[in-house]
Amino acid sequence: MRNGASNTGTAGIEYFFNPRSIAIVGASDDKKKVGGRPLAALIERGYAGKIFPINPRYEEVAGKRCYPSILDVPDDIDMVIVSVPAAAVLEVLEQCATKGVRAAVIFSSGFGEVGAEGEAEQEKIRKLARESGMRVLGPNCFGIMHVSNAVMATFAHELETKSDSPRTLSLVAQSGAFGARMFEDATKAGVGCTSFTSVGNEADTEFSDFVDYLLDDPDTTIIGGYLEGAKDGAKLKRAAEKALRLQKPLLIMKVGRTRAGSRAASSHTGSLAGADEIYDAFFRQMGIVRIEHPDEMTAFAILHRDGRDYSGGRVAIVSGSGGHGVMLADKCETVGLSVPEIRGHTRAKLERSLPAFGSGKNPIDLTAAANGKPEMPSGCLRALAEDEDNIDVILTMPFFQWERSKELAQEFVDIYRSTNKPLVVMAHDRPDSDEAAARFALVQSAGIPILYDQFQATEAIAKLSWYQRKARQGRVVDTGPKAPDPASCAEVREMLRGGEPLSEFGCKQLLKKYGIPVTREALATSADMAVELSRNLGYPVALKAQSGQILHKTEAGVIKLNLASDQEVRRAYKEVLANARSYAPQAHVEGVLVQEMVRDGVEVIVGVTKDPVFGPAIMFGLGGIFVEALRDVSFRIAPLTRADAEEMIDEIRGRRVLEGMRGKPPADRDALIDILLRVSQLVTDHRDQIDELDLNPLVVLPKGAKVVDALITKRAR
Amino acid sequence: MRNGASNTGTAGIEYFFNPRSIAIVGASDDKKKVGGRPLAALIERGYAGKIFPINPRYEEVAGKRCYPSILDVPDDIDMVIVSVPAAAVLEVLEQCATKGVRAAVIFSSGFGEVGAEGEAEQEKIRKLARESGMRVLGPNCFGIMHVSNAVMATFAHELETKSDSPRTLSLVAQSGAFGARMFEDATKAGVGCTSFTSVGNEADTEFSDFVDYLLDDPDTTIIGGYLEGAKDGAKLKRAAEKALRLQKPLLIMKVGRTRAGSRAASSHTGSLAGADEIYDAFFRQMGIVRIEHPDEMTAFAILHRDGRDYSGGRVAIVSGSGGHGVMLADKCETVGLSVPEIRGHTRAKLERSLPAFGSGKNPIDLTAAANGKPEMPSGCLRALAEDEDNIDVILTMPFFQWERSKELAQEFVDIYRSTNKPLVVMAHDRPDSDEAAARFALVQSAGIPILYDQFQATEAIAKLSWYQRKARQGRVVDTGPKAPDPASCAEVREMLRGGEPLSEFGCKQLLKKYGIPVTREALATSADMAVELSRNLGYPVALKAQSGQILHKTEAGVIKLNLASDQEVRRAYKEVLANARSYAPQAHVEGVLVQEMVRDGVEVIVGVTKDPVFGPAIMFGLGGIFVEALRDVSFRIAPLTRADAEEMIDEIRGRRVLEGMRGKPPADRDALIDILLRVSQLVTDHRDQIDELDLNPLVVLPKGAKVVDALITKRAR
Repeated sequence: MRNGASNTGTAGIEYFFNPRSIAIVGASDDKKKVGGRPLAALIERGYAGKIFPINPRYEEVAGKRCYPSILDVPDDIDMVIVSVPAAAVLEVLEQCATKGVRAAVIFSSGFGEVGAEGEAEQEKIRKLARESGMRVLGPNCFGIMHVSNAVMATFAHELETKSDSPRTLSLVAQSGAFGARMFEDATKAGVGCTSFTSVGNEADTEFSDFVDYLLDDPDTTIIGGYLEGAKDGAKLKRAAEKALRLQKPLLIMKVGRTRAGSRAASSHTGSLAGADEIYDAFFRQMGIVRIEHPDEMTAFAILHRDGRDYSGGRVAIVSGSGGHGVMLADKCETVGLSVPEIRGHTRAKLERSLPAFGSGKNPIDLTAAANGKPEMPSGCLRALAEDEDNIDVILTMPFFQWERSKELAQEFVDIYRSTNKPLVVMAHDRPDSDEAAARFALVQSAGIPILYDQFQATEAIAKLSWYQRKARQGRVVDTGPKAPDPASCAEVREMLRGGEPLSEFGCKQLLKKYGIPVTREALATSADMAVELSRNLGYPVALKAQSGQILHKTEAGVIKLNLASDQEVRRAYKEVLANARSYAPQAHVEGVLVQEMVRDGVEVIVGVTKDPVFGPAIMFGLGGIFVEALRDVSFRIAPLTRADAEEMIDEIRGRRVLEGMRGKPPADRDALIDILLRVSQLVTDHRDQIDELDLNPLVVLPKGAKVVDALITKRAR
Repeated sequence: MRNGASNTGTAGIEYFFNPRSIAIVGASDDKKKVGGRPLAALIERGYAGKIFPINPRYEEVAGKRCYPSILDVPDDIDMVIVSVPAAAVLEVLEQCATKGVRAAVIFSSGFGEVGAEGEAEQEKIRKLARESGMRVLGPNCFGIMHVSNAVMATFAHELETKSDSPRTLSLVAQSGAFGARMFEDATKAGVGCTSFTSVGNEADTEFSDFVDYLLDDPDTTIIGGYLEGAKDGAKLKRAAEKALRLQKPLLIMKVGRTRAGSRAASSHTGSLAGADEIYDAFFRQMGIVRIEHPDEMTAFAILHRDGRDYSGGRVAIVSGSGGHGVMLADKCETVGLSVPEIRGHTRAKLERSLPAFGSGKNPIDLTAAANGKPEMPSGCLRALAEDEDNIDVILTMPFFQWERSKELAQEFVDIYRSTNKPLVVMAHDRPDSDEAAARFALVQSAGIPILYDQFQATEAIAKLSWYQRKARQGRVVDTGPKAPDPASCAEVREMLRGGEPLSEFGCKQLLKKYGIPVTREALATSADMAVELSRNLGYPVALKAQSGQILHKTEAGVIKLNLASDQEVRRAYKEVLANARSYAPQAHVEGVLVQEMVRDGVEVIVGVTKDPVFGPAIMFGLGGIFVEALRDVSFRIAPLTRADAEEMIDEIRGRRVLEGMRGKPPADRDALIDILLRVSQLVTDHRDQIDELDLNPLVVLPKGAKVVDALITKRAR
């Protein structure tokens, strides 16, 4: 490997975006061919570096000297575009490596996406990349494009769409065709794109590497992605954390949300998609904006460009048609924005200037009467712009498009400049005359976002508002205080060693090391001892036979609850042992656990599952029937921040149960958060040893909480 | 009133659509004025009837003789358009009535929408209409338009948008501006509109009257509505039932869904909106398609035009880009369509003709490789069209737009004609050349729907699929078997008479008359009697002091549960009576109810609330914490069909609880349905006497069900 530099992650990726020279293997004069298109585009756009067509069949291509092979080029080559049949790819790459090429873009398909044989060829590419230090994009990709220096290393005609808008958006896509479409749509809608990368089969470089690299690009203030499945969850997480830190929004269209979608996605690029709930939780946790449709990304990019603060989420709507205003208000509240009543000074101002205004209503309907009375919309918008207490975002119809309201366009600009508040124009049609177009242009050039698809726009406002709150909050993973002393940590490591499963009692001993509160309990090895322990705990008690081989205790009949006397305990002791023997004759029974009965709390479940992409994911839900009948649970990836734990609790539909219902006192939320954080610490410290964990039930009391039953599955070797 | 005909409902409405003569009061030569616009439009479109401009200031308007007043017109007048200031409206209408005008359209605003004074003027209009028999549209409306005979009784320029498409859609709107926009958008998208009605303030005629009338119009095969609130729920229900019977879809955009929306809607036209949950339930019950955005209506109308069967809802997706296919599949499943694996013969066919096809995957991704290989898309579509068992609807990209696939357009037409299955083209861009446009036109003219907004299209497919199932099912309200004999019915009527509230025992006696099963129980008036009754019932029992004045029995402490012995019953008897006395010293206590304890069932709640628009609405939910923490309930308007009851049960999120969880047997669904239908019969028979009803809890057992507690609120006088 050259230079001793690492050849993974973002190392060397700059050569894809800023190559000093580009060779095209499989170059052609035919602009319609995959090997002809990038050559033409590089020349057409005025790429300033050297260009070397490679093709043994030609002396000259596009007026440039053509070489039979990479090795015949007399100059250094930074980047090579490979457009040859799959069978020829490896040889070309070997020549590239020999030549000291920094970056190779492989258009060719016929690798991982076609089955085991292709997979094996692809693995050779990966190995060659790792060994040579040359970075590879693809195979089976649409290439890469960097607008500012005319690096058009792609054959997708959609990427040739030009734009005058300031460049902000970089796109990274696991589907070349779909990504190129996103690029074209965004560009046409007025979003300036900085770069486009189609990652293809990700033999060497992958989605997250490009996101990570582009976050450092000053021309990239927002990143859009199309993702079917992340290859490496930890990498994506690091990139997302960096994005949040740099306050550059990362918007990802993650497909395969539903059953049918997932099936297709997993067979499409050969990437293994984790369960969609986990992705969803991960995105929310990391401040990644999940988009459902490319138009949402476009609207978001346009809104984000104004640099204003949408985070409050309280929206005023000014329309010229009641129906339109109400439709928008409905949509706003559906997506989590609020449309509050107009109050105080603002209300008084509106009541003075609008004849029919009353009762603080929002949406504000100026009616067709406002046509020809520009003072109505402008007075109204001014009052809202000056509202300091109640309104964060103003949505307005383009009143300036009305024939008799020309002067309103400048008025809009003045109002916009007088305030820091976002003002968004929700238009229905594009301007239909030059005159109207000029007014639209005046408004837009002042920085006021104008959006046409009002539902996508509303979604985008809600998502930007959420994103800004999330970015402000940041991510503070401060789990130090939840970690036990090194000695206890080592003890836990020891307890988790070996293949034999832990009994409930063993699990709880372990949990206690991490400060997780459990029921008062002790192990009895005789009926007398059980009685004595019961008296010490105080009646009633529960008895449970303990064995790492009997994990379904209810099914095995080895649990007896609500034992109220010495006799009952004696009888139960015999029974649970007998049942254990008949249920699992080979099981090693440690003894019988004597346990206090816990009452008056709310049963919840805290669990951990190992996601193949993201590692330990923590689950929270209300216990019993809520989980079983409603699947009312929330997930976050470990380690958790305190804010994550709060969100997990607030996200479940049945959260009101924790607030105390039917005269019950509220459950101790802080104790629950503390346990979530301790579980997070435990599975983070021992992620190599723990596969699954279940605290079920965990009873949250008015003060404190107690694990009543627990199960920990050690990592299978 | 003329002719002895009724002057409410749809009577006389034909004169709005087919007037033989039209007068315009406030007529003007200025085409931009509200009084000038319809005159110009009537002439321009070639309205064949007589036109009489009315304006005392002119001798002639638009080349036609102008009359000083309606009374000066020498001919009969069927319809009058009134475009004068609010203050002059009533005088004009009086002249109209004197003249024997059949229908008046009032553009003028300044009535119900501006407050109490306007409301009073509007009431005069209503009275005049009722007394004279002349039907009135408005005031404060955009008028009416009937395309086939050029009745352009409107000033909205949007309604002048022309169309070549076959006419199918009639629009009725409570917001003129928004409705006109819907008309324009639908027309531009290729839907032929038959008529448009802006109902304004609905002083006389209302939304439902026009829907009802238009259902009989052969040129109207689908009706679109914009609704803020129905004035008369019963009328809307009749219209909806008729629409379902005639299989003419009724699509309504009902705004005011959320809090903010509702507030604005209720102050917008002065119509009282019922709670949105009730509207939603009513729409689902009646087969009304609720749309969230006008574009959904347009897409629905285009799909519906093909006359094919979408009801199965199993979709195959054929795309040329994996990302696009997966996005569509995700959206399909989100809206309730399914995207099943390709199976059997079809799978074998695809495996033969598509190189990369395997594992039955759907969406089917033909990849860019299909460009120039028209046999790939056509073979694939043919195989899907022939699939008899697994696929109901085929969604496809417009492969015929690819440069090298011209001949595919005719291929699409041939495939479409070879099958009865819907084939929908999901296009991204409109054709960008004349050549491409010709191919699109060829496909479209064969009847194949082409849609551009793919999310709205998918929503529309799901809604059409739902609608067709609903229309096939129809509405069979067969409540006869649930009605008691006339004598019992009369007894119930007697029990519900008078102002004094019913005790639990009283309610249950009443419920029993309707065959609704209740707990075994009897009223004790002494402790001895309570003990005797308890022994007869079998221990354990519950005791509850009974009084129509003590409705919150738990709060009052007059309930004792799980009494297991004579002594406990004696003690409890005294206690509940003492508590009743101290809680409500004035209350008349009928006695103490001795009741069996019911175990091993699922607690549910069945309730009735009186909706101001739709009357008695029946609610169903799981009892206890499910209702309180999750508001997990469903509604339907009485009377219920059996299908309604089934849907109510299936709609709640926690429905799995009824199926038997954690080893419990399933609850008796038939018994529950039976009770829902009996409650429906009860509140339908006595809707004038019952305001509210609560069976809470109703315990559904493995076999049968029992009302454990009940409350009936008599109608307040």
